[in-house]
Amino acid sequence: MLHIFFLLPLLLSASHASVNDFCVADLKGPDGPSGYPCKPPAKVTTHDFVYAGLAAEGSTANIINAAVTPAFVAQFPGLNGLGLSAARLDLAPGGVIPLHTHPGASELLIVTEGLVTAGFIASDNSVYVKKLSKGQLFILPQGLLHFQLSYGKRKAVAYAVFSSSNPGLQILDFALFASNFSSSLITQTTFLDPEQVKKLKSVLGGSG
Amino acid sequence: MLHIFFLLPLLLSASHASVNDFCVADLKGPDGPSGYPCKPPAKVTTHDFVYAGLAAEGSTANIINAAVTPAFVAQFPGLNGLGLSAARLDLAPGGVIPLHTHPGASELLIVTEGLVTAGFIASDNSVYVKKLSKGQLFILPQGLLHFQLSYGKRKAVAYAVFSSSNPGLQILDFALFASNFSSSLITQTTFLDPEQVKKLKSVLGGSG
Amino acid sequence: MLHIFFLLPLLLSASHASVNDFCVADLKGPDGPSGYPCKPPAKVTTHDFVYAGLAAEGSTANIINAAVTPAFVAQFPGLNGLGLSAARLDLAPGGVIPLHTHPGASELLIVTEGLVTAGFIASDNSVYVKKLSKGQLFILPQGLLHFQLSYGKRKAVAYAVFSSSNPGLQILDFALFASNFSSSLITQTTFLDPEQVKKLKSVLGGSG
Amino acid sequence: MLHIFFLLPLLLSASHASVNDFCVADLKGPDGPSGYPCKPPAKVTTHDFVYAGLAAEGSTANIINAAVTPAFVAQFPGLNGLGLSAARLDLAPGGVIPLHTHPGASELLIVTEGLVTAGFIASDNSVYVKKLSKGQLFILPQGLLHFQLSYGKRKAVAYAVFSSSNPGLQILDFALFASNFSSSLITQTTFLDPEQVKKLKSVLGGSG
Amino acid sequence: MLHIFFLLPLLLSASHASVNDFCVADLKGPDGPSGYPCKPPAKVTTHDFVYAGLAAEGSTANIINAAVTPAFVAQFPGLNGLGLSAARLDLAPGGVIPLHTHPGASELLIVTEGLVTAGFIASDNSVYVKKLSKGQLFILPQGLLHFQLSYGKRKAVAYAVFSSSNPGLQILDFALFASNFSSSLITQTTFLDPEQVKKLKSVLGGSG
Amino acid sequence: MLHIFFLLPLLLSASHASVNDFCVADLKGPDGPSGYPCKPPAKVTTHDFVYAGLAAEGSTANIINAAVTPAFVAQFPGLNGLGLSAARLDLAPGGVIPLHTHPGASELLIVTEGLVTAGFIASDNSVYVKKLSKGQLFILPQGLLHFQLSYGKRKAVAYAVFSSSNPGLQILDFALFASNFSSSLITQTTFLDPEQVKKLKSVLGGSG
Repeated sequence: MLHIFFLLPLLLSASHASVNDFCVADLKGPDGPSGYPCKPPAKVTTHDFVYAGLAAEGSTANIINAAVTPAFVAQFPGLNGLGLSAARLDLAPGGVIPLHTHPGASELLIVTEGLVTAGFIASDNSVYVKKLSKGQLFILPQGLLHFQLSYGKRKAVAYAVFSSSNPGLQILDFALFASNFSSSLITQTTFLDPEQVKKLKSVLGGSG
Repeated sequence: MLHIFFLLPLLLSASHASVNDFCVADLKGPDGPSGYPCKPPAKVTTHDFVYAGLAAEGSTANIINAAVTPAFVAQFPGLNGLGLSAARLDLAPGGVIPLHTHPGASELLIVTEGLVTAGFIASDNSVYVKKLSKGQLFILPQGLLHFQLSYGKRKAVAYAVFSSSNPGLQILDFALFASNFSSSLITQTTFLDPEQVKKLKSVLGGSG
Repeated sequence: MLHIFFLLPLLLSASHASVNDFCVADLKGPDGPSGYPCKPPAKVTTHDFVYAGLAAEGSTANIINAAVTPAFVAQFPGLNGLGLSAARLDLAPGGVIPLHTHPGASELLIVTEGLVTAGFIASDNSVYVKKLSKGQLFILPQGLLHFQLSYGKRKAVAYAVFSSSNPGLQILDFALFASNFSSSLITQTTFLDPEQVKKLKSVLGGSG
Repeated sequence: MLHIFFLLPLLLSASHASVNDFCVADLKGPDGPSGYPCKPPAKVTTHDFVYAGLAAEGSTANIINAAVTPAFVAQFPGLNGLGLSAARLDLAPGGVIPLHTHPGASELLIVTEGLVTAGFIASDNSVYVKKLSKGQLFILPQGLLHFQLSYGKRKAVAYAVFSSSNPGLQILDFALFASNFSSSLITQTTFLDPEQVKKLKSVLGGSG
Repeated sequence: MLHIFFLLPLLLSASHASVNDFCVADLKGPDGPSGYPCKPPAKVTTHDFVYAGLAAEGSTANIINAAVTPAFVAQFPGLNGLGLSAARLDLAPGGVIPLHTHPGASELLIVTEGLVTAGFIASDNSVYVKKLSKGQLFILPQGLLHFQLSYGKRKAVAYAVFSSSNPGLQILDFALFASNFSSSLITQTTFLDPEQVKKLKSVLGGSG
Repeated sequence: MLHIFFLLPLLLSASHASVNDFCVADLKGPDGPSGYPCKPPAKVTTHDFVYAGLAAEGSTANIINAAVTPAFVAQFPGLNGLGLSAARLDLAPGGVIPLHTHPGASELLIVTEGLVTAGFIASDNSVYVKKLSKGQLFILPQGLLHFQLSYGKRKAVAYAVFSSSNPGLQILDFALFASNFSSSLITQTTFLDPEQVKKLKSVLGGSG
């Protein structure tokens, strides 16, 4: 016959060893190269492992007819240190996620509604583009320029999942034309015409 | 005025440097600790980055009223080395994915249809269980026992994404009762009654 | 002839560079995904690199006739960030370490006294079991269910070493029957009979 | 008194353990996620650790008045698996390395001759630009758009070193205008005017 | 009532996913930066996870009155990719493991018999030395010079465990005096007297 | 026509995701196994990515006729977490960097002026030595004993770059003869003659 009281010492030492099954981010703490400090285990609840922020459709009433809603560590602290995050893409008909990169992660795209064209450009300038329908997966390797857009007449929804809890997001047009990157440096380093640069800066709010 | 012929040398050296944007698995090659050897870049096509195997509903006409369809590196070789993979969970009403672990990855669960109860048990024996609806995310940290089951009267669909291209999957009941793990060792190391072990082995096909 | 005073500037710059040969844990600081903050180097002494807590035999006067004494980062802060830890296993005759996993590390078992049967179950439900004598080593890969028990009439001692300073420890029976994991969810996700669950919960103190 | 013959057994076991101090790439073997297979240790010579390909000035007689000469693993196989590589930048007066990213590595720039302006754009569209003179270092974090150009009337030389033996190189203009990325997709995903796209494609040789 | 035939499809897909719980080294294959290629899973047996080579005492009938018996990946292929290895140290009275480093791993020393003095020197030239008795643990951080020797009148045994399956071993005296490192370079880079170098080379067999 | 106000929401969410493009060290914070805590992004300026400390020649008016000037994370906090650092070597005629190791990084040496002999000793006691001229690169794998010295009649300059922001530096002679490592332990663990040890300790300031 087993006796619970005899097991308690082992139970306690096992419990003592359990720190770090997970490391829910304390976003107030200073982060470091591997992420945020951990919330004290005693304060962690089920709530820390749930995120409902991707349940609602993002607003596509904007010039790109699209929305990107991130669930990175800043939004979903439970992901801290786990090497995973996600984002929801909403694409109205004609919607487009402009050319961008994730400096710190590869992406796996899962289309859950509608029709999506996704593509990326490799370092050797090869272009990989695919029309995807519901349930199809597409890979966008780390750091490479890529895009998503809807085709067909219906809205589309996709989940992008990433190999980091903080993949980063650099949108090409915003980097060039919504920043204070000087027009002179842009034309020197991209060969774009000054008029083109000026036009897009006026639209996107860039200066310099 | 720019001249294309002057740029070619730089173009070539850039192209030379582009190896390893990705490493599509050559599943015939021997794998190693970090994954499979890469398919020669010249043979890689867009097809290598697309996977349609999760588009169709898995059959739930089985005793668990559920199906797990993996898109790990063995099914989707483009994931090799990227630290990402996925699986589709189909849960008919009453469906359940039995208690299991992924020895090599954390999991992020994305519910895309219906209602799913998911939960895990931490090393200190705390239990984290949550009823999830469409669009909600849930974290299942690496190596911990967890489960998913449908609730409500409708079927449910979820995508599980993993922080490894090969997360592994150890289903508790199969490890104990569908293997040749000797009944004597099972009772010694789990305190289950011999009758219970015998009963489940006869159902699940275990021996020993 | 060499002159010490000329070397001092180089000596100092070398010393300046020496931070981070090691990172003894400051257990009071918040930990992060890669471990605890480092104790200030000036306060580190030889004592931080020594641990005597595994020298004494653990008490086996309990229902499993066995003891696990951990030297993880929480007990031995000098291990912080080094990717190593250890535990001592004491097994009286008939002693058993129940089925368990380490979610965050592989294990290498070194038997130093007596006779030990160790085994693990792989993801494909293959079972690997071996009777080990003094001086023999056995591998228990990361995250897989495994156990150790003594055979023969003498007590046994073994050291388990791990590929992480914080490998974690999830004991199957405690996760199921010493937690508040609801009996209804247990039977649904393990196919165990309700009577079996009730019996083990009463022994191990589980609720729910 | 010491005797060499007694030491030989230890000598041999030490030698046996020495595999993998380094892993010079066998570029003919299939690479994998962590790099190329190792050249057999017995065939490794001092020559494998030396690279003279950056000693000569690269030709800047081209439209960018600049040259990038890589010493990545493909050129310098001894770097395989070491997490390091380099490139030489030659910038004639007015020379520019167009906007580009390294998808797989951070860069540390060391100016050794002349005057160089370097800059990068962060994910939040902040722009960091600095005029550098001989001996100054500049950081270009992983995956972010950056550039280098000479200022002043003299040629400039810099070494870029990378945190990977295969950092990758994606040049923005080549990705867009020297590839077969369709003009329609370019305008949709960058908001550039069709005329601009057409003009640069004709210069850089793009199609589609 | 459960039916085994319904479970088989799930069983198979789980089994399919199980590749890479472990990666037993195929020592004949070319190794790579992360280790050796894996032995085909179908050929793996329990034998691959067991190593008996440390059970026997190493011969200490040599000038150092000591023996180091490694269980690195070359001797114990099951360790491949697991980030762990071990060695057995046998020290007769007066035995010494000369000053050495492990370039690729930290070490945890476990004394199992007798009395051992162990020590290391940090980058700032601090010296950490400790007399250890049975059951005590000592840390030797990665890449730092360290030694072990017996004290007292009895033989001593210790296990060294490492944070890599291939930690490497560079013995200072062998590097200097059992190699073909030229005496001229040795005296220039160590400030040792030529007579001292000549004397130790003649004992240890060095040339150059 | 595009309208900036519609883009702002996306702009903000992108900006929110941009934390951790880099992690400039806050050297006042306690470091951890992966580096220092990050300086708040709002306080980061271009200055954090620039380091001018290697621009000036190090003083070689010392017994080794050489200087090592580090740009590790302690000197150049912007390198924190990037896996890169550098040092400048100045070698007057006859200058020598004595035998040393970097416990935590491999090194790539770039000669930018004069003539340098560099060499390392592998674990199997093979010696790799090379005379290098301007522009040549040489690899010094992690943790192995190595040296650099000038040859010819001119001063030499080289940059050493490392695969860690904190590579460490252990100079053999300082570890042995400028520390308080007891002479008795030195002779036991190195076989050096007591007179040799005494002589070098008196020059380098060692005690014990």
